[in-house]
Amino acid sequence: MTPDSAPRRLVRAEAVLAARRRDVTLVLEDVLDRHNISAVLRTCEAFGIQDVHLVACTETPAEINPAVAIGAERWLTVHRHDGVPSAIATLRSHGYRLYVGHLSPEAIPLATLPREGRAAYAFGSEHRGISPAWLAAADGRFVIPTTGFTGSLNLSVAAALVVYDRLCVAAPSPAGAGDLEPDEIAELRAAWYEMLAHGSAAVAGKYKTHLQNPPVSERLFPIDRNQT
Amino acid sequence: MTPDSAPRRLVRAEAVLAARRRDVTLVLEDVLDRHNISAVLRTCEAFGIQDVHLVACTETPAEINPAVAIGAERWLTVHRHDGVPSAIATLRSHGYRLYVGHLSPEAIPLATLPREGRAAYAFGSEHRGISPAWLAAADGRFVIPTTGFTGSLNLSVAAALVVYDRLCVAAPSPAGAGDLEPDEIAELRAAWYEMLAHGSAAVAGKYKTHLQNPPVSERLFPIDRNQT
Repeated sequence: MTPDSAPRRLVRAEAVLAARRRDVTLVLEDVLDRHNISAVLRTCEAFGIQDVHLVACTETPAEINPAVAIGAERWLTVHRHDGVPSAIATLRSHGYRLYVGHLSPEAIPLATLPREGRAAYAFGSEHRGISPAWLAAADGRFVIPTTGFTGSLNLSVAAALVVYDRLCVAAPSPAGAGDLEPDEIAELRAAWYEMLAHGSAAVAGKYKTHLQNPPVSERLFPIDRNQT
Repeated sequence: MTPDSAPRRLVRAEAVLAARRRDVTLVLEDVLDRHNISAVLRTCEAFGIQDVHLVACTETPAEINPAVAIGAERWLTVHRHDGVPSAIATLRSHGYRLYVGHLSPEAIPLATLPREGRAAYAFGSEHRGISPAWLAAADGRFVIPTTGFTGSLNLSVAAALVVYDRLCVAAPSPAGAGDLEPDEIAELRAAWYEMLAHGSAAVAGKYKTHLQNPPVSERLFPIDRNQT
């Protein structure tokens, strides 16, 4: 089976896989607006962030608005936590530094936050902001500097600016390159190939034959600010 | 009247004025989602962009969702156009280059678009995209490169990334600095001081005494990516 004979959607899946990354993740704590949650998922998926953490401290679980997320959640690993302690323990155990968006004197501009290593960027609820538990655990607080009367950004906008700043501006590694380990890629590949069969057992069977020898794919967009 | 005696909100207004700019403007053509329009206004206001152009080609006028815009529109110059020709004529007469967000082979990555001079960044409707009239007039088409399955970004997210990229990343002039002419500043100042009186004639009268000798203000956030 040569790559040339692979279905186009598998070639595309390989390109997406090759750009997938876990060094940046977003955490939404008690975010209740479905539009915001869905827009964040869509942005993360579009930019190749594989993991999003939804932390519920209230009884209302986070919901997704399909019209805004347009299916992005299917390609993401969405981690749901019932409280802050388990979310923090999970992230710490996987080597993440914790940064928290917070309007306070100690907060430093997003652009000056260190970019090395794994980092989770947490946003609190639209109404109450981030909880004291996150603040206490955080390695740093950041702010997106603004100059207008409007003191705060829409949550989905702030999250998108964090994603863009971290991945497309501050990234020390070649932007657009993924960082998943081979076993992580293999696991996602198996799940994605099955989803791409859209419920057809025949197609799924055909796609399975490509799992051991997946098509080779160029990265989709080698983003390089210096490449004009 | 010394600056020290000026009300705090006038000092704040001066800081916002000093950061106001017209070299970047956003154009929304036939955008119908009130959430999107309002989020774009809020983002522009927060980052100091003074002008936003709303172009209606259909019969439905663009509406603002106050819960999302949180009053940002009051501090902006929102230009409403009844069609593309008048919008383009207005922008051209004020020296703007026209860039259009468009997924096409000729589109170049946002980060590689020239940053010099005045530029208007146009976005089309959520459903039909930008109109042929804009494409025909445009000096360039841009795309925000993504690497996921999700081929498109939410409109308010895409607009925010353009604002951030242009003002906070690609800006050749000191980021956070405004570019309004003295007469433009004077005009906005008079309007803003009056709005800041919140309908009180007595307060408005008091604020008016500061118009000829406004308080001096530091810029709010000198954003400098190299200043770590």
